[in-house]
Amino acid sequence: MTTAFRNWQAVQQEVLRRIHAREWAPGDLIPNEADLASEFGCARATVNRALRAVAEAGLLDRKRKAGTRVALQPVARATLSIAVIRQEVEEKGARYGYALLERSMTRPPAPVRAALNTADATLLHIRALHFADGAPYALEDRWINPQGAPGVLDQPFETTSANEWLLEHTPYTRGDIALSAQSATVAEARDLGCDAGAALFALTRNTWNGPVAVTRVRLLFAPGHSMQADL
Amino acid sequence: MTTAFRNWQAVQQEVLRRIHAREWAPGDLIPNEADLASEFGCARATVNRALRAVAEAGLLDRKRKAGTRVALQPVARATLSIAVIRQEVEEKGARYGYALLERSMTRPPAPVRAALNTADATLLHIRALHFADGAPYALEDRWINPQGAPGVLDQPFETTSANEWLLEHTPYTRGDIALSAQSATVAEARDLGCDAGAALFALTRNTWNGPVAVTRVRLLFAPGHSMQADL
Repeated sequence: MTTAFRNWQAVQQEVLRRIHAREWAPGDLIPNEADLASEFGCARATVNRALRAVAEAGLLDRKRKAGTRVALQPVARATLSIAVIRQEVEEKGARYGYALLERSMTRPPAPVRAALNTADATLLHIRALHFADGAPYALEDRWINPQGAPGVLDQPFETTSANEWLLEHTPYTRGDIALSAQSATVAEARDLGCDAGAALFALTRNTWNGPVAVTRVRLLFAPGHSMQADL
Repeated sequence: MTTAFRNWQAVQQEVLRRIHAREWAPGDLIPNEADLASEFGCARATVNRALRAVAEAGLLDRKRKAGTRVALQPVARATLSIAVIRQEVEEKGARYGYALLERSMTRPPAPVRAALNTADATLLHIRALHFADGAPYALEDRWINPQGAPGVLDQPFETTSANEWLLEHTPYTRGDIALSAQSATVAEARDLGCDAGAALFALTRNTWNGPVAVTRVRLLFAPGHSMQADL
């Protein structure tokens, strides 16, 4: 006999307690939401909200038809929000600035061709700097497939960044990102105004519209950058 | 008159087209799912799946009661999956190894006290190395609040890592992570077997069980590490 649970946080605590006490062991199917709502004396929506939170923390595996099981290997999930760089800078309360460094039609190096699967095609290559309060914030090195971004060849990208234009004008259906740490090369250090060899946070992103590559970008952030997310 | 849309990807393409063509402009409320399903000649669940994908790409804002609007500022969302380190190493096909470097009860430095809000309390300090195929993979520097992790003081952490034990035994209700790049100090370089000053990918995570801090950990990964996610 359980007393009524008032809110989803209380249900979440009880679900966590059962998992950690092994009353519900790894791999076990747990009771369905309706049964739990009845046991806890609360609405089914309250149970749903609590189970969702525990699943997001990686302790439950929810399958639409097969029900909910205690995870065999807990995997925490964190959601990163990736805004247009101008917006990111402005949200930090800083003044945004932008400078185009290079704009050319070039055959990309092999790793870019392989990542975008564009074979021998010539792509639009953009290098640009983003500033926060006049200091370099991020160095953008981008390849754009004109076939995946109609209209892109008409854009000078002298005042509006490709980062911003593409997000507003070019649809994509899927993408992937990789986050890493890189030592600044001499050229990158000069662009970013830091020491060569400084540890830089790097974000590489590929996007696709169906089977057609849209763009590949590598952003190198000035030293001290960090990316936050809630678990 | 629109012909019937066979699958959610086709609906997604049409939704993206309307957004990018400004038929649906930033801030506009779009038709509800039932109306779109009727227009597209498909099931409402198909529309729901398509709108969810476009919302995850940051182009739509969905509010339960207020309906779905075209985002004013597109923000892409990426989900990171953070597994137990042993599991992460094994999924790369490598042999996992573990070594405890330090285990002590200590008053943490000010930034840790501030992050965990534990005032003057003495916390359990753990430093450990995780290996992949015998090579250092990640250096763990962790503070554990015994009040937030009952039973932790009985754990030697000599063969099982705190990373693994906590995920299995200690509930948490919320947390945050920060990702950054750091230059290896001389001591970190010695532990990780790399050059001092090498660019290291760093993950700092704080977790809480309700109002009580559970743990703060900083993982420094050996050079070359990257973290991937789908957009």
